Amino acid sequence: MASVLVVGTVAIDTIDTPFGQAPNVLGGSATFFSWSASFFTHVHLVGAVGHDFPAEHHALLKQRGIDTTGLVTRPDMKTMFWRGRYFDDMNQRETLEFQANAIVGFEPVVPAPARGVPYVFLANSDPNVQAKVLDQMTQPELVVADTMDFWINTQKDALLRLLPRLDGLVLNDGEAKLLTDEPNLIRAGQKVRELGPKFVIVKKGEHGSYLLTKDGPFLLPGFPTPKVIDPTGAGDSFAGGLMGYLAADGSHAPGSLRRAIAYGSVVASLTVEDFGLDRLKLATRQEIDHRLEEYRKMLAF
Amino acid sequence: MASVLVVGTVAIDTIDTPFGQAPNVLGGSATFFSWSASFFTHVHLVGAVGHDFPAEHHALLKQRGIDTTGLVTRPDMKTMFWRGRYFDDMNQRETLEFQANAIVGFEPVVPAPARGVPYVFLANSDPNVQAKVLDQMTQPELVVADTMDFWINTQKDALLRLLPRLDGLVLNDGEAKLLTDEPNLIRAGQKVRELGPKFVIVKKGEHGSYLLTKDGPFLLPGFPTPKVIDPTGAGDSFAGGLMGYLAADGSHAPGSLRRAIAYGSVVASLTVEDFGLDRLKLATRQEIDHRLEEYRKMLAF
Repeated sequence: MASVLVVGTVAIDTIDTPFGQAPNVLGGSATFFSWSASFFTHVHLVGAVGHDFPAEHHALLKQRGIDTTGLVTRPDMKTMFWRGRYFDDMNQRETLEFQANAIVGFEPVVPAPARGVPYVFLANSDPNVQAKVLDQMTQPELVVADTMDFWINTQKDALLRLLPRLDGLVLNDGEAKLLTDEPNLIRAGQKVRELGPKFVIVKKGEHGSYLLTKDGPFLLPGFPTPKVIDPTGAGDSFAGGLMGYLAADGSHAPGSLRRAIAYGSVVASLTVEDFGLDRLKLATRQEIDHRLEEYRKMLAF
Repeated sequence: MASVLVVGTVAIDTIDTPFGQAPNVLGGSATFFSWSASFFTHVHLVGAVGHDFPAEHHALLKQRGIDTTGLVTRPDMKTMFWRGRYFDDMNQRETLEFQANAIVGFEPVVPAPARGVPYVFLANSDPNVQAKVLDQMTQPELVVADTMDFWINTQKDALLRLLPRLDGLVLNDGEAKLLTDEPNLIRAGQKVRELGPKFVIVKKGEHGSYLLTKDGPFLLPGFPTPKVIDPTGAGDSFAGGLMGYLAADGSHAPGSLRRAIAYGSVVASLTVEDFGLDRLKLATRQEIDHRLEEYRKMLAF
């Protein structure tokens, strides 16, 4: 069973939804990714927090068995902070406050013992930084990255240099269209793949995702939870379930990749059922497997 | 093999898309429905056109084997006309001109020989008119209706009286939310079902559809055609494929209903690949079955 390394953010979030408010909860891409991947395999986390990062958050990640050797504390800075609000339909959100804090100028260093980890996830970040992380890995077997509109708009050249180094890229529908200037989503996904990655996963929020490979598309609707309380972290949980399953499976054959996407979607569906990590903290691998079987039944014809 | 009856519109459409213009083509809900259902079984069409309705359009429907005995010509009126424009992303359209013409005050009469047809589709119309059609049917086995925001907003009471008389209701995501005031789509679909129909199909455009029954949800992503030229008629083609398959299968057991939705989605994916009926005219049942098998492969995990 291979392990997974993630480089991403560890943050404090204050979330406002039609169902209530969650002030100052543990968030960030690497947090959601790590917790989700840890249902399947061992996880190494690389990131940076500030002097104010609560000791109990750090303890929580360690108790979960996540290797936080690579989680640096920057003593003269505060932890990244995001405050946002979701609207009635929960697909729309507004950022009310963002303080990058500890991630400003952060150059991630992968601790020596973790440089040989074969499954690598580069959470959304400056593609120049993502590339420097990848440079540190000694035997990457499967490298997947996330990106966002901001980097497509401001660091497109760096992103285009990164893409051929990736096995997979995860991005959302709007970002795929933005990157390729192609309004048809299937064609957009295929064009992204032509830019370098062996596979592309286009996320469509509650509508699920498309996987594009050389073998053609795989389509998966989102797992339809009727209880959406807080969508924060859904995308990173999806990636965590995906990479965790692949690493545990030790394969990235087409069938494994499809199952991994289904697992990612199931873990994401749990994440959104409560604020922050609250629902994931209660989840078990058994529950995830059970939901995967329900999912299969919902999709069979 | 049971046959299907549809009551809906037969219209002339002028369509503008980023791929070109199609002036004065045969359109309307009953047209797309009938053609799509006729891949599977015999179809009876009830509707009204005006004195200007081209004889070749009528001949085309008859040559296809569609029973147009119930297609009335109103001599002092013109045929319904719609002119619309699609934007770059093809999910958005704008109505530039709409003339109801021959459908104004039209009270559909089902010809006596067709009143015993067991599979009935009430295309989008005033729910009072839909109810009067249903009154004429002598042994309806499966009755499915479509509706739209206009009727939810203006004839909600009549719609609520109709719903318990239906086996199935087909509506789109925004309409399901509007009818139930529920932003979560799965819960909205379940609430629509609680209003009377045994099953509800929530259409999500290119994102596919949800089926809600007492046995829980069935999820189907849209068939991902990379070639979307003209989305006009996709929803009615979906319904035509669905009802045509069910009637041919002679069953509406849960498994049949799921397969029928997949067939509906396949036929709709063909419809959008050219203007008006052009693509459907070239399609064959064999091609539809082939696409269904491709679809299964795209969905398997």
